[in-house]
Amino acid sequence: MSQEIPLGPGGEFDAIRAMLGRLGETASGIGDDASVLEIPRGDQLVVSTDTAVENRHFRAEWLTPEEIGYRAVTAALSDLAAMAARPIGLLWAVSLPDAWRAKLPALSDGANEAARAVNAKILGGNLTAAGELSITTTVIGSAYRPLRREGAKPGDKLYVTGELGGPAMALAALTAGRKVEARYQARFSKPVTRIHEARWLADEGATAGLDVSDGLAGDARHLAAASRVGLRMQLDRLPRIEGADAMTAARSGEEYELLVTAAQLDAEAFTRKFGIRLTEIGEVVSGDSVTFLDRGRPAEVGGGHDHFGGA
Amino acid sequence: MSQEIPLGPGGEFDAIRAMLGRLGETASGIGDDASVLEIPRGDQLVVSTDTAVENRHFRAEWLTPEEIGYRAVTAALSDLAAMAARPIGLLWAVSLPDAWRAKLPALSDGANEAARAVNAKILGGNLTAAGELSITTTVIGSAYRPLRREGAKPGDKLYVTGELGGPAMALAALTAGRKVEARYQARFSKPVTRIHEARWLADEGATAGLDVSDGLAGDARHLAAASRVGLRMQLDRLPRIEGADAMTAARSGEEYELLVTAAQLDAEAFTRKFGIRLTEIGEVVSGDSVTFLDRGRPAEVGGGHDHFGGA
Repeated sequence: MSQEIPLGPGGEFDAIRAMLGRLGETASGIGDDASVLEIPRGDQLVVSTDTAVENRHFRAEWLTPEEIGYRAVTAALSDLAAMAARPIGLLWAVSLPDAWRAKLPALSDGANEAARAVNAKILGGNLTAAGELSITTTVIGSAYRPLRREGAKPGDKLYVTGELGGPAMALAALTAGRKVEARYQARFSKPVTRIHEARWLADEGATAGLDVSDGLAGDARHLAAASRVGLRMQLDRLPRIEGADAMTAARSGEEYELLVTAAQLDAEAFTRKFGIRLTEIGEVVSGDSVTFLDRGRPAEVGGGHDHFGGA
Repeated sequence: MSQEIPLGPGGEFDAIRAMLGRLGETASGIGDDASVLEIPRGDQLVVSTDTAVENRHFRAEWLTPEEIGYRAVTAALSDLAAMAARPIGLLWAVSLPDAWRAKLPALSDGANEAARAVNAKILGGNLTAAGELSITTTVIGSAYRPLRREGAKPGDKLYVTGELGGPAMALAALTAGRKVEARYQARFSKPVTRIHEARWLADEGATAGLDVSDGLAGDARHLAAASRVGLRMQLDRLPRIEGADAMTAARSGEEYELLVTAAQLDAEAFTRKFGIRLTEIGEVVSGDSVTFLDRGRPAEVGGGHDHFGGA
């Protein structure tokens, strides 16, 4: 499709053409000043934006360019999962240092793979020269009734999808210069958004929810603050990837699993449908304190994930 | 409203709260993973994204922080004007070096002013630490029938709004270290998007259009390429800001005026309604050549605006 992109001549536009050429059928309406789309009748629009900066959110020596593109888009799409929204598409703004120019097609391939995985179209893009690699992804989805962080009620149970700790285990090994075990590497370099799972959970009565991006401990506090409730969690119930301890599971960020509250959910039905776990890890209480219990006693879990020293 | 933003504790969130506190009533639905909005029934959604990077798209010594925030948002909103779309809102992603941290409120004030000027809401934001200041603005609007770059037909006339050359005259003075005349400074530091003008032009029969961001000469080529037509323009008809010559007017970028084609438009009615000029500057021809005539002879105008050496 690259030869059909109606842009004038010039180096920047050649680079954009090269990038768009990799997006194949995922691209829609690019070439105008803006892209045009329709949303399902009756749905509300759900939008979010997220930026990934080199050496703040990722390190180039730990990931391939494809994985960097994939993860940037996945992190943004996960905010649609957090709202139980159906992805429509995304806009992809890349600030590119000269040294990265040759890797733009690979970055684009990764972005495309992440978008295709959830049937999102690439609705627009922007490419600019810059001193550091930075990728801002804005996602657009829709939902008839979005799932919010607000809505948890005392007496609700607290659930988390999947198994936590993989990204933290990978980061610990990478930081120490050790080989990363494959199961951790997969969770770190190719995380999966829980788009379909989120819609199921919302349909089955989830009262509030978000995605685990800052780490379960930090995100639990966000949910509690928004719903103006407290949370009491059992450390030993946290679903852990093999080899990770409970503290690692509680702190591991960029998981993109879902943390939801509901009066009651059918975890077995969830697992039959999606092939991953849904684990009851605690309960919503009145007040505003968020506590972890370790065999009945309060445990100090600490703050949220901070990538590796960046914001 | 800052105390009502439901986010957990931590330095990053404190900074976001400080930023959002400045946005006042313009903000909507911030605090969840994504924001929720509705679009007018029957309209199509129109979306676009744009990035401004320090020392590529702007220089901090030439603009106040408010002006930097204002211009970043205005540049993105102008892509909605280019499509004759009504702005709904925008998402604002800021990559912030430590040295800029204290200026974040001023940047936000400028963004807010640009959004309010066209009744756009701030729908979401992202703030991250970074090595260079970079602002990515994603705009969301809607239109029943968007104006596109494609659609110009041989025989159509070519029109441009306003007066060109102000930003180029300001940049020339700034680059040379000269004082900038007030009329140029106003066009450079506080450009205006032609949102309402664009909808009027579309309603009155514009067949194609875009905004002048790369310079009239460059943008005319984009329009011609998309519509698969040629354009013939008269250099001496270009509407110029006082003191600018025709070549400057043809090359000046970041104007955010509109370039549209139509069988015929009523320029006097336009000026009565909006208080700015609408000038017929040429015509659409068959073929694919874009030419400027200077008293009947072809003139070499050169390529588009390139900010000042950045992409």
